[in-house]
Amino acid sequence: MIQAGILGAAGFAGIQLAHILSQHPDMELVAAASDSLAGTLLKDAYPAFTGVSGLEFCTSEELEAQSLDVVFLAVPHTASLEQTPRVVGAGAVAVDLSADFRLRDASVYETWYGTPHTQPDLLADAAFGLPELFPQDLERARGRHERHLPCVVACAGCYPTATSLAAAPLARAGLLREGAPVVADAVSGVTGAGKTPSARTHFCSANESVEAYGVTTHRHTPEIEQILQVSGRLVFTPHLAPLNRGLLSTVTIPLAEDAPIACTEDAQGLYREFYEGCTFVEVLKPGAQPKTASVAGTNRAQVAVAYDERTRCVVATGAIDNLGKGAAGQAVQCANLVFGLDEAAGLEAAALPV
Amino acid sequence: MIQAGILGAAGFAGIQLAHILSQHPDMELVAAASDSLAGTLLKDAYPAFTGVSGLEFCTSEELEAQSLDVVFLAVPHTASLEQTPRVVGAGAVAVDLSADFRLRDASVYETWYGTPHTQPDLLADAAFGLPELFPQDLERARGRHERHLPCVVACAGCYPTATSLAAAPLARAGLLREGAPVVADAVSGVTGAGKTPSARTHFCSANESVEAYGVTTHRHTPEIEQILQVSGRLVFTPHLAPLNRGLLSTVTIPLAEDAPIACTEDAQGLYREFYEGCTFVEVLKPGAQPKTASVAGTNRAQVAVAYDERTRCVVATGAIDNLGKGAAGQAVQCANLVFGLDEAAGLEAAALPV
Amino acid sequence: MIQAGILGAAGFAGIQLAHILSQHPDMELVAAASDSLAGTLLKDAYPAFTGVSGLEFCTSEELEAQSLDVVFLAVPHTASLEQTPRVVGAGAVAVDLSADFRLRDASVYETWYGTPHTQPDLLADAAFGLPELFPQDLERARGRHERHLPCVVACAGCYPTATSLAAAPLARAGLLREGAPVVADAVSGVTGAGKTPSARTHFCSANESVEAYGVTTHRHTPEIEQILQVSGRLVFTPHLAPLNRGLLSTVTIPLAEDAPIACTEDAQGLYREFYEGCTFVEVLKPGAQPKTASVAGTNRAQVAVAYDERTRCVVATGAIDNLGKGAAGQAVQCANLVFGLDEAAGLEAAALPV
Amino acid sequence: MIQAGILGAAGFAGIQLAHILSQHPDMELVAAASDSLAGTLLKDAYPAFTGVSGLEFCTSEELEAQSLDVVFLAVPHTASLEQTPRVVGAGAVAVDLSADFRLRDASVYETWYGTPHTQPDLLADAAFGLPELFPQDLERARGRHERHLPCVVACAGCYPTATSLAAAPLARAGLLREGAPVVADAVSGVTGAGKTPSARTHFCSANESVEAYGVTTHRHTPEIEQILQVSGRLVFTPHLAPLNRGLLSTVTIPLAEDAPIACTEDAQGLYREFYEGCTFVEVLKPGAQPKTASVAGTNRAQVAVAYDERTRCVVATGAIDNLGKGAAGQAVQCANLVFGLDEAAGLEAAALPV
Repeated sequence: MIQAGILGAAGFAGIQLAHILSQHPDMELVAAASDSLAGTLLKDAYPAFTGVSGLEFCTSEELEAQSLDVVFLAVPHTASLEQTPRVVGAGAVAVDLSADFRLRDASVYETWYGTPHTQPDLLADAAFGLPELFPQDLERARGRHERHLPCVVACAGCYPTATSLAAAPLARAGLLREGAPVVADAVSGVTGAGKTPSARTHFCSANESVEAYGVTTHRHTPEIEQILQVSGRLVFTPHLAPLNRGLLSTVTIPLAEDAPIACTEDAQGLYREFYEGCTFVEVLKPGAQPKTASVAGTNRAQVAVAYDERTRCVVATGAIDNLGKGAAGQAVQCANLVFGLDEAAGLEAAALPV
Repeated sequence: MIQAGILGAAGFAGIQLAHILSQHPDMELVAAASDSLAGTLLKDAYPAFTGVSGLEFCTSEELEAQSLDVVFLAVPHTASLEQTPRVVGAGAVAVDLSADFRLRDASVYETWYGTPHTQPDLLADAAFGLPELFPQDLERARGRHERHLPCVVACAGCYPTATSLAAAPLARAGLLREGAPVVADAVSGVTGAGKTPSARTHFCSANESVEAYGVTTHRHTPEIEQILQVSGRLVFTPHLAPLNRGLLSTVTIPLAEDAPIACTEDAQGLYREFYEGCTFVEVLKPGAQPKTASVAGTNRAQVAVAYDERTRCVVATGAIDNLGKGAAGQAVQCANLVFGLDEAAGLEAAALPV
Repeated sequence: MIQAGILGAAGFAGIQLAHILSQHPDMELVAAASDSLAGTLLKDAYPAFTGVSGLEFCTSEELEAQSLDVVFLAVPHTASLEQTPRVVGAGAVAVDLSADFRLRDASVYETWYGTPHTQPDLLADAAFGLPELFPQDLERARGRHERHLPCVVACAGCYPTATSLAAAPLARAGLLREGAPVVADAVSGVTGAGKTPSARTHFCSANESVEAYGVTTHRHTPEIEQILQVSGRLVFTPHLAPLNRGLLSTVTIPLAEDAPIACTEDAQGLYREFYEGCTFVEVLKPGAQPKTASVAGTNRAQVAVAYDERTRCVVATGAIDNLGKGAAGQAVQCANLVFGLDEAAGLEAAALPV
Repeated sequence: MIQAGILGAAGFAGIQLAHILSQHPDMELVAAASDSLAGTLLKDAYPAFTGVSGLEFCTSEELEAQSLDVVFLAVPHTASLEQTPRVVGAGAVAVDLSADFRLRDASVYETWYGTPHTQPDLLADAAFGLPELFPQDLERARGRHERHLPCVVACAGCYPTATSLAAAPLARAGLLREGAPVVADAVSGVTGAGKTPSARTHFCSANESVEAYGVTTHRHTPEIEQILQVSGRLVFTPHLAPLNRGLLSTVTIPLAEDAPIACTEDAQGLYREFYEGCTFVEVLKPGAQPKTASVAGTNRAQVAVAYDERTRCVVATGAIDNLGKGAAGQAVQCANLVFGLDEAAGLEAAALPV
């Protein structure tokens, strides 16, 4: 069994990692670190673990004292800059769910996150963790791990994952129109706002309401632009909706004049081919649209595509669980690939049908 | 007291009309028609009327037999084509919440609704009911009413109202970029899907999920294009979210190269000036974003605007209650204007603070 | 206009008071005190006030410096013990929403609240604010106010209001069985848990779950026992459910052997007679059950009653809005009575029909 | 692999069975019958199956034509009376989720269900499917199956399961007070109301509201009385709350004078001993209360118990997923026992932590 630890295990992404790992056939969760909850049983903080796990949160220090094969970092940005070197220094694979190693260009990181990037060497070698779009990155990470080199996987963010899965087939094919922005309007459940109680995450504020936030300024913007290679051309607006889990990104993509797409079926063909062989991405049939509930609690993504003849745009939609394929699921999928396991190990869960 | 009737009173927009009229200082609801519920007390179908109203649903025929000053048609499209001539023939003002008299060009109606328009004369004279953007239409309707001419007000739809309020200041100023689509992604509560129980409106289907629908095909598309005069240039995608009431439209507007807007304050100035004197539209201060809950149960709209320097787009957001400013509230506001009442009569309600 | 102030105006009950008073025909809200938000506009903390009120939160000290006719205390228990003397000392009527003056017997207060009662004199003269059950208390308070005597109204709590309205007709008629407890299981929306963000009120904790809390220990227990005069005989269990507003109390009442009730109609007759002339309490017809949504946002209560022949119990249910009839609405109703206004002034709002 | 079929597979309990069986290590779902959806892919009716199962709904007739080891009947009462004989006639074990074989006394069935019981022989031999309380029933069923005798398991209903798990330790110990009713107030999520769209299950009706229903008349009453052996002494009131899954039963149990329980710890000791060795029932520690979310999507139950000295009652609470331990999970657990498998096979899922 691969020995796994989680830093930031008491947050929503961290605890979802614990949930997945508690049933992973090849990984064993041996250390779940939360400096604020150290000494507390997981089940006392998250009663869904009652009867499932007797594990207790430990301190980060206690985690670092153990010999682990892989450490998942479910910590805020900048905390990962600090902790990742120690993780890889101790010989573990670092699977980072923060933003610290996602942006290839440190100056972009510094612009959007307002803080210097202190680990340029690790950044240079980090793999980008979105296996469907960057399989070679995971392949390379696996090689580094096998050769005992420092191995960092920077898992894609939740909005970037859904948005990029929806838009990548067209972007990679070079079919985007010059001079017109790509517009991604995305809706997330409230787990996306994190565990810390606040006025905004109070039930009575979030319930029965929808709102946009981070308009023109959300830090996932440069990450999506990097993935899709549309620098300076993306307008990304996230929204909060009253559900626990789920993220839907609706991407409106103006097509280049000569793009060989004249109907929805053309677009679908392109998408189906693009995602052929991908376990976790389903391209829906014409007319169907993804519901976030259909992937809640899973590492799955559903994508639909529709062609708008009037405006010569494609409207592509991608649904994921923001804590699943948008965070913990993706991290485990990446770890599976780095360790040469079945990509889907521990990730077979299907969403509840209703 | 102005004597008012409602056709289609048992539907969600119809019953919201009954709710408003039951507390209107100058209008009296004397006939609430629902052919399926005729004979039932309003309070037995909608227990919120318990202790509030002893009214009983009547048949359409019974309503038409009464002498009324105004009839609100909260009926499906095509039904209004049939009933409006009788309403105006009987001398009442027809305030139509259906789509039948919204599109100026009957051929556009026929294309999107798949049925011939049988009332071209009434259509030619109908006022478009979105007072903030078409005040002269309501002024003209008032004149027709006073001269005892047939008077039809075609109230704007819910998505068109929120989307147009968000985008009109820029569109009217001629600042849109050629060659790039205007993108409106909107989210509606489930009352927008109507009263008829269906798999889609089942609690367990709508709850805890978000989905797009009507992608590239929603019938509000040509209506928004007509209002904003952006024919063939709008990509409109509606979404369903798990809340009862509320509609948020997020509109991404690429600016023309020479548009005199270089920062969010520029855009805000334009918006504030545009909506000066409008009772029901609030332009939020920089950084604030409208929450649908803040206007739920009211005829109010909140609009915010942000400038994105990177893409030279404006992201404008508009929030309304789909049954309020998006339907019944707007209809009453239009009727107030036609009858020369205070525009806000019966519409002063504020949203619950929490 | 009666000049009104609110202490604790930024909490959920306080802000609901501001909402009601902003549309009250005879009262004017001139001071809304919140020491933590002093200087903030109401609308910036609660955007539902946008376009409705330009008022700013003041400090408690600023409020106390004004000459007011009535002060509503929407503050935690013990805070009211401290502030009420100053309020009545300044000549204002004190309408207290806290628990500090509800329990007639100070020793009961001290047992359940764990703190001494420091105002026995004010307590002795305080009126209990649940007008349907204690009309003479409000009458007496009105007299004190008119004679310029210190006047304190201790408004009933949310659970006591719903539970007592459901059970009082039988209790007052002396029909309860000896030796069997009265069982009240009540469900409240999350506004009942207050405004302070916490793990428990986090959307993702409260959403999609139901739980009991305060089992056998909730402080509303002695208050209900006092109202119904069932000391030591009530088992009260409150529950939290995922809705903003609404409180339903289901009360199972074993009947005395000789109670003259042999069918649901008997019980209904008793209830209808009991609540005859009560503006805000509706006894539903046989077979109907109150939904909390039917009274949300209002000062109304709906009560239903069913007789169980098998166990010779009555199951009585009472629904209110915990912030309406359960807090702010009731407080305004009490104030109306003290000032000799129409009991329903400012409280005519009906619930949204859907 | 045990070959399994589901009758009524398109309903909520049926589709949850399909969800569980699609990941069961020892059972294979080979026929999912729904006469209304025959020919439709599971994933087209329930998109959570996308990428998970390629199965198509068949007709009941097609299911019956197959050679199956076990058939789960997720059909309405009376339908099971008709289909179960054919199922056992064909040699399969019948695991019935309807009420048709739950009540030992056919006359009680006929009283509460208003229809004659046509299968007294099968009823006489049926096992009651609530393994924690009737292990011997499942043992006997296993024996019948092994001896190729007709084998019917009548799975307990959702409310009876949660209520009985909460109350059984005291009832079995004979500690209930004579002359005082046992009061069970239970709250269920909306999946409990079934799949058929109706006014009551419309999102906008169920959302943001709580209501009681079936007051004094719910058909689970005699079933709970049978399990707890409290004939004519139970007052059971079910409620509907706005969540998809989850059922909480709060049971107030007056104690006999000589019951050896003087504090919560005494009651807890009794409960812990009673449920020792039960995989799926957790007795929570003092002060903790079960949240339905902690068992959603699982076959688990959480139980808490508190002693009320004032009234000498125990308040016991039990939480389950109404479709899990309250329906499909319990059915699979029973089938596992009949076939001699690990009781927990296919039922290891833990609830999502948030």
